[in-house]
Amino acid sequence: MRVGVLGGGQLARMLALEGIPLGHRFTILEPGADPPAAALGSVVAAAYDDPDGLRRVAAASDVVTYEFENVPARSAAYLAARLPALPPPLALEVAQDRVAEKTLFRELGIATPAFHPIDGPGDIEAALAVTDLPAVIKTRRLGYDGKGQAVVRTSEEAVAAVDRLGANSLATGPGLAAEHGGLIAEGFIPFERELSVLAVAARDGSRVFYPLTENHHRAGILRTSYAPAPGLTGPLQAEAEELAALVLDRLGYVGVLAIELFEADGRLLANEIAPRVHNSGHWTLDGARASQFENHIRAVTGMPLVPPQVPGPAAMINLIGEVPDPNTLAAIPGAHIHLYDKAPRPGRKLGHVNVTGNDEGAVMETVERVWALLPGAGELPGATGW
Amino acid sequence: MRVGVLGGGQLARMLALEGIPLGHRFTILEPGADPPAAALGSVVAAAYDDPDGLRRVAAASDVVTYEFENVPARSAAYLAARLPALPPPLALEVAQDRVAEKTLFRELGIATPAFHPIDGPGDIEAALAVTDLPAVIKTRRLGYDGKGQAVVRTSEEAVAAVDRLGANSLATGPGLAAEHGGLIAEGFIPFERELSVLAVAARDGSRVFYPLTENHHRAGILRTSYAPAPGLTGPLQAEAEELAALVLDRLGYVGVLAIELFEADGRLLANEIAPRVHNSGHWTLDGARASQFENHIRAVTGMPLVPPQVPGPAAMINLIGEVPDPNTLAAIPGAHIHLYDKAPRPGRKLGHVNVTGNDEGAVMETVERVWALLPGAGELPGATGW
Repeated sequence: MRVGVLGGGQLARMLALEGIPLGHRFTILEPGADPPAAALGSVVAAAYDDPDGLRRVAAASDVVTYEFENVPARSAAYLAARLPALPPPLALEVAQDRVAEKTLFRELGIATPAFHPIDGPGDIEAALAVTDLPAVIKTRRLGYDGKGQAVVRTSEEAVAAVDRLGANSLATGPGLAAEHGGLIAEGFIPFERELSVLAVAARDGSRVFYPLTENHHRAGILRTSYAPAPGLTGPLQAEAEELAALVLDRLGYVGVLAIELFEADGRLLANEIAPRVHNSGHWTLDGARASQFENHIRAVTGMPLVPPQVPGPAAMINLIGEVPDPNTLAAIPGAHIHLYDKAPRPGRKLGHVNVTGNDEGAVMETVERVWALLPGAGELPGATGW
Repeated sequence: MRVGVLGGGQLARMLALEGIPLGHRFTILEPGADPPAAALGSVVAAAYDDPDGLRRVAAASDVVTYEFENVPARSAAYLAARLPALPPPLALEVAQDRVAEKTLFRELGIATPAFHPIDGPGDIEAALAVTDLPAVIKTRRLGYDGKGQAVVRTSEEAVAAVDRLGANSLATGPGLAAEHGGLIAEGFIPFERELSVLAVAARDGSRVFYPLTENHHRAGILRTSYAPAPGLTGPLQAEAEELAALVLDRLGYVGVLAIELFEADGRLLANEIAPRVHNSGHWTLDGARASQFENHIRAVTGMPLVPPQVPGPAAMINLIGEVPDPNTLAAIPGAHIHLYDKAPRPGRKLGHVNVTGNDEGAVMETVERVWALLPGAGELPGATGW
């Protein structure tokens, strides 16, 4: 089948690497030069809202999918009117707006932090009455990797954050906030850890779920993931699958859906959704019988899904800003290298290393060996309890 | 690293699929239109002996390798003079000529069928004196998939076979036999089974070996492989690794080397070598920690090798001439599809299915389910003893 992908980054690259053996061909819409997925398909070099670029991708594809959620709504609608566009545009719309996202969770009875939209300084008081202090002020749209958010502990800090994050300009005219669609205040959750669940829905309605993954961020960027999440119990996994299934149902979802969760007092709170393959699922390339990339491609092309079948513990370490000597990395038993062929730049995700082993101890030893090679990486964000 | 590959078929396709995550880029030299590897790199569309094509591949590559052994010797020499060309051209030369190949085995003390070159009808008597009857008459060069050979049971059949296979024309002038480089007579081995061993040699001299694989042909084309070979013992594996190591040593080899073997009376006889990744190693994509393709790319690019680590039994079924509905195949648990994106044609290898499972019984059940989907496949060439 001919698969179109909006975005040509590492996610598209890995989708194509896993989809090509299934007999599929890929066309990539990407405005940037020499994208990581360029080696794996035809590239249509155009902006994501360029009508001619969209027309060319549609003409070259039997189905179109996305490697990121911030596809312009009109582009998704244009494509969906011409060919299957999966996951459905509704999922993109919800994921693009933190208020819509949390409203969805609440409507489905899924626990989520208290929240309130802030369209201007006049909303701060009402918002903090809902969220209490401390709270987190975030842009509703286009925040990623920790950008566009601030933790506030007092009303004064809230006013300053709203001012800085741009909602003021919304109140007075179009500016940053218009682009970012206003702000949202969320209750600050003193969570024990961050988890994510990856769910996959096929076109025929069948579903598979990967085991919950434990994620560690630094400066808002994912550094390490551990799966199955240390200490994962059957009931916790069941709770995650149930809430994910509610979201899949509501969105008429097809493909991989990632839901970021907080674990607090033994309960799961949904934080946000990513309607795409997700960095916290990269370990599945080596730690599961079928990766998130293979299952996403299977889902959107109408093929049957593969149950994950996770034989043992796995970890993932992002390579950020700089890649250590690949030959040194490649010599570490149990370490699996995945490079994205991107130019180094501070804060940029250039690749990842998956680690597999017979038991948690072996995995952690290998994680430590890999981590020790990362320049200036600081302390390892280790798994809780391994 | 920039890797050039001579040939753009399924082997180049799988080399690139496994090499791209390691951060490499591929340039493919291929005369045919729309080759299976086209989606995975830059294609230089030229004949294998086209000076301009070779120059372009050399300019675009840091190392060059091959997906087949019949690279013209002058092309390999041209490339080797300009950049690392691995495996070394000597390995190609030996593999291109059955007499050179068997002479190498004999010089190294490796058991091989009795053989004698036949350059014309006048050599038949001397050849049969060495091989005895029955014997196998083969072209020295360019035979593959059972083409260019005949089993003969009498002197008269030998004369007819030599006549038919073209040695006569050698005696009288340049013709088919000139192209095929004469003939060879080999002793007919009443072997119990065909095996192969895959050895990998790194640039630094380190080596890894995959477990012996049992192979089943029909009409000269590989149909099924089973690994580790049923009933494989430590001593038999050691014998195979020792003889492979002798060949690696002699050829100054770097990359994957496949050696086809006969097992007869509990002994191994070497039949031929393939200086490349090999169809009998396709199971390693799903049945080993690192595939033959990954290890070949690691070897030729100077990266450390990965020990195979085979967790359980695996099988491989070639999809020949026609591909059954991929969605039906894809729904079989334990079956891993690998399609080559080639147009169907009788006798053409279009893909393969790897099968993994917890034990031999589970693997064979899945093999039978896959085999039942193959149109007109006849009786399954099953594993001996599973």
